[in-house]
Amino acid sequence: MACSRYEYVKSYEQDDKILPNVWIVIRIDGKKFHKFANAHKFEKPNDENALNVMNAAGIAVMEEFRDIVLGYGQSDEYSFVFRKDTSAFKRRAAKLLSYVTSMFTSSYVLSWSQWMQRPLSYAPCFDGRIVLYPSDENLRDYLSWRQADVHVNNLYNTAFWKLVLESGLTNQQAEERLRGTFSSDKNELLFQEFGINYNTLPAMYRKGTILLRKRVVLDSQDEQEKGRQAIVPIHEDLIGNEFWKQHTEILGKYVPGKHVVNSLNKHLERQLAKQLEKQATIAEI
Amino acid sequence: MACSRYEYVKSYEQDDKILPNVWIVIRIDGKKFHKFANAHKFEKPNDENALNVMNAAGIAVMEEFRDIVLGYGQSDEYSFVFRKDTSAFKRRAAKLLSYVTSMFTSSYVLSWSQWMQRPLSYAPCFDGRIVLYPSDENLRDYLSWRQADVHVNNLYNTAFWKLVLESGLTNQQAEERLRGTFSSDKNELLFQEFGINYNTLPAMYRKGTILLRKRVVLDSQDEQEKGRQAIVPIHEDLIGNEFWKQHTEILGKYVPGKHVVNSLNKHLERQLAKQLEKQATIAEI
Amino acid sequence: MACSRYEYVKSYEQDDKILPNVWIVIRIDGKKFHKFANAHKFEKPNDENALNVMNAAGIAVMEEFRDIVLGYGQSDEYSFVFRKDTSAFKRRAAKLLSYVTSMFTSSYVLSWSQWMQRPLSYAPCFDGRIVLYPSDENLRDYLSWRQADVHVNNLYNTAFWKLVLESGLTNQQAEERLRGTFSSDKNELLFQEFGINYNTLPAMYRKGTILLRKRVVLDSQDEQEKGRQAIVPIHEDLIGNEFWKQHTEILGKYVPGKHVVNSLNKHLERQLAKQLEKQATIAEI
Amino acid sequence: MACSRYEYVKSYEQDDKILPNVWIVIRIDGKKFHKFANAHKFEKPNDENALNVMNAAGIAVMEEFRDIVLGYGQSDEYSFVFRKDTSAFKRRAAKLLSYVTSMFTSSYVLSWSQWMQRPLSYAPCFDGRIVLYPSDENLRDYLSWRQADVHVNNLYNTAFWKLVLESGLTNQQAEERLRGTFSSDKNELLFQEFGINYNTLPAMYRKGTILLRKRVVLDSQDEQEKGRQAIVPIHEDLIGNEFWKQHTEILGKYVPGKHVVNSLNKHLERQLAKQLEKQATIAEI
Repeated sequence: MACSRYEYVKSYEQDDKILPNVWIVIRIDGKKFHKFANAHKFEKPNDENALNVMNAAGIAVMEEFRDIVLGYGQSDEYSFVFRKDTSAFKRRAAKLLSYVTSMFTSSYVLSWSQWMQRPLSYAPCFDGRIVLYPSDENLRDYLSWRQADVHVNNLYNTAFWKLVLESGLTNQQAEERLRGTFSSDKNELLFQEFGINYNTLPAMYRKGTILLRKRVVLDSQDEQEKGRQAIVPIHEDLIGNEFWKQHTEILGKYVPGKHVVNSLNKHLERQLAKQLEKQATIAEI
Repeated sequence: MACSRYEYVKSYEQDDKILPNVWIVIRIDGKKFHKFANAHKFEKPNDENALNVMNAAGIAVMEEFRDIVLGYGQSDEYSFVFRKDTSAFKRRAAKLLSYVTSMFTSSYVLSWSQWMQRPLSYAPCFDGRIVLYPSDENLRDYLSWRQADVHVNNLYNTAFWKLVLESGLTNQQAEERLRGTFSSDKNELLFQEFGINYNTLPAMYRKGTILLRKRVVLDSQDEQEKGRQAIVPIHEDLIGNEFWKQHTEILGKYVPGKHVVNSLNKHLERQLAKQLEKQATIAEI
Repeated sequence: MACSRYEYVKSYEQDDKILPNVWIVIRIDGKKFHKFANAHKFEKPNDENALNVMNAAGIAVMEEFRDIVLGYGQSDEYSFVFRKDTSAFKRRAAKLLSYVTSMFTSSYVLSWSQWMQRPLSYAPCFDGRIVLYPSDENLRDYLSWRQADVHVNNLYNTAFWKLVLESGLTNQQAEERLRGTFSSDKNELLFQEFGINYNTLPAMYRKGTILLRKRVVLDSQDEQEKGRQAIVPIHEDLIGNEFWKQHTEILGKYVPGKHVVNSLNKHLERQLAKQLEKQATIAEI
Repeated sequence: MACSRYEYVKSYEQDDKILPNVWIVIRIDGKKFHKFANAHKFEKPNDENALNVMNAAGIAVMEEFRDIVLGYGQSDEYSFVFRKDTSAFKRRAAKLLSYVTSMFTSSYVLSWSQWMQRPLSYAPCFDGRIVLYPSDENLRDYLSWRQADVHVNNLYNTAFWKLVLESGLTNQQAEERLRGTFSSDKNELLFQEFGINYNTLPAMYRKGTILLRKRVVLDSQDEQEKGRQAIVPIHEDLIGNEFWKQHTEILGKYVPGKHVVNSLNKHLERQLAKQLEKQATIAEI
């Protein structure tokens, strides 16, 4: 066969199977997203629609890779947690990493126009990394780390942009004003100077977005109704124990819990619509 | 600081720096592209425009990552060769792999509408892998392996689809007809039954696409003209020595060679236009 | 400095730090020990003194590396378990592996003459491997695997060598006689033909040797006595729960338990003597 | 089968095959050999016999592992170079590393009494590491680095111990005397104060020991004589080109060269005697 003389090069590929029985976390990060946000005129300190594009991409990843039990997004990053015993792609690190990164990127670009007015002016790029966590405690601490990060950053950014956009300070002046302040100082500043109670700002900005696989049941539906599976975006505290008591499926043997809602948000609407469409296509054939 | 209790999880990230002084090859592969090609009605056996989307994505990757000295694309795959002594992203494997995969994916989606009539019906996904080659001979053999692969596949596919589309055979009949045939048999079949000289078919289908970093000089330009740097797609044999004699910059100390053309193809036109636009923007500021 | 031109080669060493928070098991195996046992006329099926040399080497390793919480030896192999949170040698895999292998080998050769009549006729050689276990259950299963292995092999070997040495069968005849038999068959054979109750054979042969770090207290000592720390060889079942209830220090926060004995065996005697000697030397200075 | 429930733990072992077509260097280092040297009263600055023990261990390693083409020892370290295309132990890193480390250690302990008066007072221990070098130039630079190291250290130590042992300086005084001096200063000091021409000191101290696989031919033998293969210790400069011109078998296709000697040193004598003994044993059978 014509190829055989060169085929030995295939043997240079190295095995990169991940140790069994550990949590596999893949975190995606925007490359130079500061510049990207400016080029696309993102609102400051948070652009709701830009975050919705991130969430749409996160949901697409979880729809594609069934062994992801939780997604967590904030700012220009998204973390995905594969269940400990996943055998997806034989746990090969490069396969897992590149598929998740590619699917996220692809969905980000495709979802863009659904949420943003302005077209993409150039190709966004994300990096990805794999981190392994042996124990449940490690995994919770990882997620707590990311959520503590969004808290610290968002409180700062909220104060910073208020000072710049409403009080007319320069960036440098605002920076100096905030240097060395504690959380409580910034809360106070927001309340005293701008009449803002930080804790009443949108939870998505303060807590980031947690994606869980749930059976969605409309409040109006019959109690017996099993609902339809979907990736549900929620914006809660995940540092305390309450979250983990409520969503035991994450760390336990994986059975999607029930999620009762009054009405569907745009993300859920789209997923359910897509599912119905697929079934219709199958029915046609 | 609020995060500190959880920050230890950062230490679970593992070092994945690549051995110095080896060729780093990253190969991108379409995930389930057989299905993707059908869903988007790609022409058989080759869809010129779909290949152009791949090439556009390959060019975008090489524009972004300056240490890639050669790209090679065929079918739904693309290989990128980083120079041996690159220190891009400190040679960290996950960074290199995920950035290249993400940039390729992003550019694929963004370039789609420039070449294809039909819109993307769902998000395409690519996987990526890193393979290391210590010697120049290994690297050449790798590229030869991929080009031998396109030769074998394309000859087969060309014969197969002629039998199906023009002689009216079913897929199974065509398969049986070709089972056990040698290259010479398929060449003969194409010539005798369809009047086709395989070697005169478009080189892009038979040889794939090689991307090189060159100074593009128009034939009409003054000889002294230095030209403008661009990623040049060429469709040549790279298995023989001729190619390597002509493009010594690939294995040698990297200095982009000169590339003289009569006229610009679409890929080159776009790159040069983009460059002019950028300079104009800079000039304005 | 004279070296500097070449010193870049140091940067080719790659980081091999082990993931935090997993059990690190290092298993040492004799290289071609079948031949080695014959060359040194080991008794069949078990040579008590040869096993004592292995145990002496195992004890020496645990005396040197304080973060090993358990050793387990059988036949020509020895496993060492480092506590999950060890930071010995910064968890660098090659350091841990090579030190343990070297210390084991060195001590094996040095202990040889203390137990064996016949001198070493050539240098014994061991290989080593590192295996990581994320959960306590994984670790227990690993040790159970090794102890189940010694059970299966020793029962077979005991029956085999009885048939060969006492019933005068050839090796091949003995093999045929035992082919396809279950444990119960072999137990029965030993009892019926040789009057042997397998369960009363020395525990070291049937269960292997577990090394634990304990405070050794002589029965005759005062109850209040804290005893002296030593590596204690015991020969118990470690597959059931009883062992783990009794030695909670292994999986828990490491505090050596108490070990009450009537009299010291040779292994303990030597360790305690060495400790006294060291103290005497220090006192002298 | 009894073991099966636990056997899954075997799947936790990870593949560690080394990239093909690179030089594999394993370097062994004594653990706390400063203390070991003092405890065994090594002569300062060089103990010829202690170096002979190292060399005996190095030779034993090369006798055992046929794919090692060169050994290089100095002070308490030894490097072994496996040929680029070795498939020994399937290139598995842990196997290679642990076997070489174990064989070295074992032979060190067993060779001790052949060269040293004083018995071993405790078990010596070595660590080992694997470093990969893609090009011949890298490999030469690695070896040059180690030889430059012995030069710098030995010149310093020679001067230091002369000052301490003959001029009666304290260690600290000698240190201060040498601080900031260049090689030429130390050469001068040795010559002026002690009448020593550094370049005439034993080559083993100044250049370390290179082990090569050669056919040993006695000067007195017939020219046609093929000689007997052995590991030959030589003490030459390997930084310059001369060495590599003379021993082309190292980097080239491996064919042991010829080594003509007037008489056998102790190391060669032992190897040849061992070979004759083995043949005699085989002949007897």
